[in-house]
Amino acid sequence: MTSILIIGAGRSATACIQYVLEKAAAFNWFVTVADADPKLAEAKVNNHPNGRPAWLDVMKVNDRRDLISRADVVVSLLPAHLHLEVAHDCIKLKKHLITASYVSQEMYRLGDEARDRELIFMGEMGLDPGIDHMSAMRHINSIKAKGGKLTAFRSYTGGLIAPESDNNPWHYKFTWNPRNVVLAGQGTAQYLEDGKFKYIPYNRLFKEHREIEVPGVGKLEAYANRDSLLYRDVYGLSEVPNLLRGTLRGPGFCNAWNALVQIGLTDGSFPILDSASITYHEFMEGYLNPSMVGGSVKDRIAQLLGEEPDSSVMEKLIWLGLFRKKKVGLENATPALILQELLLDKWQLEPEDKDMIVMQHEFEYELDGEKKELKSTLVMKGENSVDTAMSKLVGLPLGIFAKLVMEGKIKSRGVNIPVIPDIYEPVLDELENYGVKFDDVERNI
Amino acid sequence: MTSILIIGAGRSATACIQYVLEKAAAFNWFVTVADADPKLAEAKVNNHPNGRPAWLDVMKVNDRRDLISRADVVVSLLPAHLHLEVAHDCIKLKKHLITASYVSQEMYRLGDEARDRELIFMGEMGLDPGIDHMSAMRHINSIKAKGGKLTAFRSYTGGLIAPESDNNPWHYKFTWNPRNVVLAGQGTAQYLEDGKFKYIPYNRLFKEHREIEVPGVGKLEAYANRDSLLYRDVYGLSEVPNLLRGTLRGPGFCNAWNALVQIGLTDGSFPILDSASITYHEFMEGYLNPSMVGGSVKDRIAQLLGEEPDSSVMEKLIWLGLFRKKKVGLENATPALILQELLLDKWQLEPEDKDMIVMQHEFEYELDGEKKELKSTLVMKGENSVDTAMSKLVGLPLGIFAKLVMEGKIKSRGVNIPVIPDIYEPVLDELENYGVKFDDVERNI
Repeated sequence: MTSILIIGAGRSATACIQYVLEKAAAFNWFVTVADADPKLAEAKVNNHPNGRPAWLDVMKVNDRRDLISRADVVVSLLPAHLHLEVAHDCIKLKKHLITASYVSQEMYRLGDEARDRELIFMGEMGLDPGIDHMSAMRHINSIKAKGGKLTAFRSYTGGLIAPESDNNPWHYKFTWNPRNVVLAGQGTAQYLEDGKFKYIPYNRLFKEHREIEVPGVGKLEAYANRDSLLYRDVYGLSEVPNLLRGTLRGPGFCNAWNALVQIGLTDGSFPILDSASITYHEFMEGYLNPSMVGGSVKDRIAQLLGEEPDSSVMEKLIWLGLFRKKKVGLENATPALILQELLLDKWQLEPEDKDMIVMQHEFEYELDGEKKELKSTLVMKGENSVDTAMSKLVGLPLGIFAKLVMEGKIKSRGVNIPVIPDIYEPVLDELENYGVKFDDVERNI
Repeated sequence: MTSILIIGAGRSATACIQYVLEKAAAFNWFVTVADADPKLAEAKVNNHPNGRPAWLDVMKVNDRRDLISRADVVVSLLPAHLHLEVAHDCIKLKKHLITASYVSQEMYRLGDEARDRELIFMGEMGLDPGIDHMSAMRHINSIKAKGGKLTAFRSYTGGLIAPESDNNPWHYKFTWNPRNVVLAGQGTAQYLEDGKFKYIPYNRLFKEHREIEVPGVGKLEAYANRDSLLYRDVYGLSEVPNLLRGTLRGPGFCNAWNALVQIGLTDGSFPILDSASITYHEFMEGYLNPSMVGGSVKDRIAQLLGEEPDSSVMEKLIWLGLFRKKKVGLENATPALILQELLLDKWQLEPEDKDMIVMQHEFEYELDGEKKELKSTLVMKGENSVDTAMSKLVGLPLGIFAKLVMEGKIKSRGVNIPVIPDIYEPVLDELENYGVKFDDVERNI
């Protein structure tokens, strides 16, 4: 195999492209980087002798197939809903495919065809999903191998802002899709505690957060994910009575976000009719019941939330500018969109800001009559607003896995996610060479 | 014109079919009643000499067009998303069309074509929407005609259970689509008060209900509809500072429903993973935070809700069977579906139960320096669980309007809803002959 095609040259592709180009020189590979924006592809290839930028509108079937036909391995960094088109081409043209996205039901249905053609279709090979699977499975299998009986597995991940760039009361900036952050958690979160299913509806999700202690970082808050139980069987944890996956935020975030939920600002289902003409102050006043008299809009919102007007939650709302007499200026916008636009401004990464990824797995297990706890923690900071830890941790596993495929070191065929040792061991080992290393602390409990 | 086609012979068609058949004898019309269930169509025609049942799978284009081609006026009682197919046929075959459903954007786009062909396409000709438009517009136009200046319009409608059939603590039974009842209000309700837009998010909607007094019925509760402002311009109320549309429920309903919302039982977006194996008791226990210790599940749910264990809200939850150790027995069901199935059993209409429709409009206006209030109220009870007030009030306007079209008494062409006097006056007059009469009470305020 001599040729790799990377489709998508956006922010999360940077580290992947850099890694693959770096290896390309040594292995004499040819790397094509395709994007709808030819300038972006060109910038990322940066005249590397083994690289070539390509201009690709991925909806143009013939152009897409032409590029794919000339590659041995395809890495797709497209938005998740576009992978399937590429996957069908890869089946037809007999090419290996790697993505960082959740594997959809439709993608899993291609499993037999991929296996019949001896193709590697690897999904969820990024950070979350990706590094979370690999790092958790290494410990789960190692605990089982030494005869330990797992009684709890909790896994937390957060895309946060590094302390040195943290200069706002929310301790948060956008390092990922803002829309997903605003709408996060809608539905019902489910997890397992003491063998019992627990449900948390959206209206209590942020209030019922828990605190965790991360070595070297301090206290963080975690709210439960909707999909805590999704990998229960895949991870081989069907008998484990405590299972939880959660999202991490800085101290104070969850109660303040809960205030936004309670006011009604995260509803993305229906537009506000007068959103173009009102101010933020009028917008907030709109949420107050007319029977609530006296006091400023700010005071009455505090009253609605059961907060003191100068509480730290109210301080965060005020800092966002929710009580300013400035026009919202968005036509036919939902409350969630109004909030998102406001946050885009307030939570924007400055050029030199560093992001910080925190991932922590908690394992509890019994071994030789002793109860043990193992905390395995990854903390990684970005360089600046372009070279983020997020893009590194999404892109490196993709690049590393592409290399392993090119070298012929991957045996399993068909549609897979990285939960088996043959896959996660070499990827995790190589990640360590790039500073991606978990710290493990074990103690008896 | 000699021939009417009624598509759909379900519950809400009964009164329409009866009315049209009754008139058919006098006017010598021929009435075809088509349904996917030929027995249902046959039963509704009931051997009437002017009627003929027809078996129609509405997705079979040729069968459908064949029936439509032989009619002069088509009344469609199909589910709303199927009207458009029928509408295209009616354009092509030059037939008038009447429905009780909300007019979609797609339907409005047929307006020019319908007008060019001199066709009457009337939508929203049922109860709500339908009678609400007509009865409100009669008063709005009459107040304006005498020089009054409207300052408030509030309109409430509820499909309730008659006091003589009311034997449960919720004072409610299903007389309409259960799924819509369970999911009602999700999103953000919007209305106008004192010239200002007000918003109520779903998590406060049922808590922030208001009480209204209905003559002859007593106190009822109203929660705001999402679409309070939808007809603002169509009704000619752009300058009116107080506008609200609401849904009526019996006393105590809203706080108890709010409890279901707060627990999380109305989320219809994601399935509960263990819904097939758990009991209702375990289901409720799942919503309790593990940190909440002591007391029965019932007591802890009360604590979660801020209720006393023997409060009237808790009484209603207990009556539903939410704390029973009985299997839910539904595979992969959302919380909302689990709740709906439980309610279907508890809120079922008994054969001899009478439903009750309540509609009340409140107008406030200034005339000759005086401030006046007008309350216009319709209360109508059904005969039993088949001849419901709901089906009568949906079906009669359809039948009456079909008669007016057949008689050539309707002048306006194109896609319309019943907000102009030429349409609502004759329909309201004829409705009075069938006992559908609003009581008006006016007073100075």
